[in-house]
Amino acid sequence: MIVGIVGGGQLARMLALAGYPLGLRFLILDPSPSACARHVAELIQGAYDDHQKLKQLASGADVVTFDFENVPAKAACFLESLVPVYPPPVALEVAQDRLFEKRLFQELHIPTPPFVAVDSLEALQTAVAQLGLPAMLKTRRLGYDGKGQWLLRTSHDIPAAWQQLGNTPLILEGFIPFQREVSMLALRNHQGSTAFYPLVENQHRNGILRLSIAPYPATALELQARHYATQLLQRLNYVGLLAIEFFVLNDQLLVNEMAPRVHNSGHWSIEGAEVSQFENHLRAILNWPLGHTAAIGHSAMLNFIGELPDRNTLLAIPGVHFHAYGKTPKPGRKLGHATLRVDDPSTLQDKLAKLLTLMRQ
Amino acid sequence: MIVGIVGGGQLARMLALAGYPLGLRFLILDPSPSACARHVAELIQGAYDDHQKLKQLASGADVVTFDFENVPAKAACFLESLVPVYPPPVALEVAQDRLFEKRLFQELHIPTPPFVAVDSLEALQTAVAQLGLPAMLKTRRLGYDGKGQWLLRTSHDIPAAWQQLGNTPLILEGFIPFQREVSMLALRNHQGSTAFYPLVENQHRNGILRLSIAPYPATALELQARHYATQLLQRLNYVGLLAIEFFVLNDQLLVNEMAPRVHNSGHWSIEGAEVSQFENHLRAILNWPLGHTAAIGHSAMLNFIGELPDRNTLLAIPGVHFHAYGKTPKPGRKLGHATLRVDDPSTLQDKLAKLLTLMRQ
Repeated sequence: MIVGIVGGGQLARMLALAGYPLGLRFLILDPSPSACARHVAELIQGAYDDHQKLKQLASGADVVTFDFENVPAKAACFLESLVPVYPPPVALEVAQDRLFEKRLFQELHIPTPPFVAVDSLEALQTAVAQLGLPAMLKTRRLGYDGKGQWLLRTSHDIPAAWQQLGNTPLILEGFIPFQREVSMLALRNHQGSTAFYPLVENQHRNGILRLSIAPYPATALELQARHYATQLLQRLNYVGLLAIEFFVLNDQLLVNEMAPRVHNSGHWSIEGAEVSQFENHLRAILNWPLGHTAAIGHSAMLNFIGELPDRNTLLAIPGVHFHAYGKTPKPGRKLGHATLRVDDPSTLQDKLAKLLTLMRQ
Repeated sequence: MIVGIVGGGQLARMLALAGYPLGLRFLILDPSPSACARHVAELIQGAYDDHQKLKQLASGADVVTFDFENVPAKAACFLESLVPVYPPPVALEVAQDRLFEKRLFQELHIPTPPFVAVDSLEALQTAVAQLGLPAMLKTRRLGYDGKGQWLLRTSHDIPAAWQQLGNTPLILEGFIPFQREVSMLALRNHQGSTAFYPLVENQHRNGILRLSIAPYPATALELQARHYATQLLQRLNYVGLLAIEFFVLNDQLLVNEMAPRVHNSGHWSIEGAEVSQFENHLRAILNWPLGHTAAIGHSAMLNFIGELPDRNTLLAIPGVHFHAYGKTPKPGRKLGHATLRVDDPSTLQDKLAKLLTLMRQ
């Protein structure tokens, strides 16, 4: 059985590493000849909208999935005419546009921060008047890791933000003074079986995920998150793993965004859960039984951004697991991660503090 | 950093899968174009004694290791003249010959079953008179998975055994009515740091490992096994993972044999230990810090021999992890394994009994 993956970054790489023990093989499509998944799978080098390359991928694979959500919708639909494609392209389309995404959340009664679509400077000024400041101005499409976002603190920020972002459709979101950010990783296979990982607490820096801690112990929030996730999985007739990010404000969840793929905030599950998000995404798209999602102990996942820390320093710490993605270092680039897994939450806090000191983070 | 592996079977495959997260890459030498490690690493197809191919392997790798011990000693020494090779070829030479191996055990005062070298029918008859019957007649070299062995029950068995095995140097071993078989996986890096996995209990069928249960709770035996393992690691100036199989007789260990490589009785460590035998073998040969070897809960590893069981039946059982090696089914061939990992030993016994029933084993 061969799984095709559109996109050959670290998510494709970790999907392949999780899939070989299941007897699977992998075929990757990526525009870059140095896509880091090429070390562990055959690579078709080509653009995501190159029909010849898409045909080559489809004819070499039994099922196709994605390692990122910004695959052109047309390409996803073209693929779907040739081979089973999961998650369904409609989920990509919705997730690619912050406005479509938020409207879907509204339709399903999943609370969101207040938002207004913005297509002109006039509309932006009206929106600011409506939502108040501070507020977040974001591009509707192609934003990731904090890119395509501008925090408007006062009305003086409006001209610069408009100059930077105003050439593309935008959305203004009310600023949420959240206490925490959490995420829910939810799974559904063809038969409609679902499974949910424990809630994860996330910490970002400069818009990039820096640290995830799992499980985040909050039963009421977890039930709320599962309920919202179930609504989304069913509404999208979803197959695969869906990641949903929430703000926590006064013990309530407000949905921030979703990602129709395996997710950085689930990397802890490789060592920290019975079955990892990567294996479970593959099980879901192949319509195999979903694996047990329970946490084994307590985990903290720390991203390596821009540079790798000293490997031997980390390997010498019991409980630390090192993951390098085989990518060339570049400022702001995710190059790897470490997961610290231990048996109890207080040990986790102690060892994490030491680890952060060692890494000078 | 590129690790070369002589031999491209499932052990090489699992070494590579464990090594990619560490940022390593792999180059394999195997005579077969369908060696199952080729799915996850670049393959040089060639004989183990082909100097051109060995040169190609050495020039493409920073360090070379083995996925089986029957690499011709000359080939290992030739490789060692070109590139660092671990474990040291002398360990392969000793492990390749049951007589050399047993003499080393004797030298180190590690108890063995009684044995006599046999080079003629006359010598065999003398040896039988000396050790008594039953006794095991074994080829000194190239035996594995019960091949090259003959159980002599009465003197009537001698002619047939001699006819079958007598064309090669032999060893006669006293028959040990052991209560259990256990193994110890021991590690040593260049700096002389050592680490030991918990003792594992093994069950064989027709000479092939069928089931391993870890950890095997026997503190006194474990200390004894660690002591013997330490003697061997030091004497051989060993670097890498060394597997040592023992018989348990009247609460004492008798060494059966050793394997200078990762070992089937350590596969449980992928899910059942903090750091797997595969990652730790790589850490040892690269002189990186050795990883924590403690068990996480209790594990049973079950080999898939000759055919794969129904995958979905197994995947549906919480705690079961499925490993297929990507090999063509053939009677007696190891095609994969499952590891059942749970938190406590009584749950392990219950679930293992059900699993064996399901697999009709």
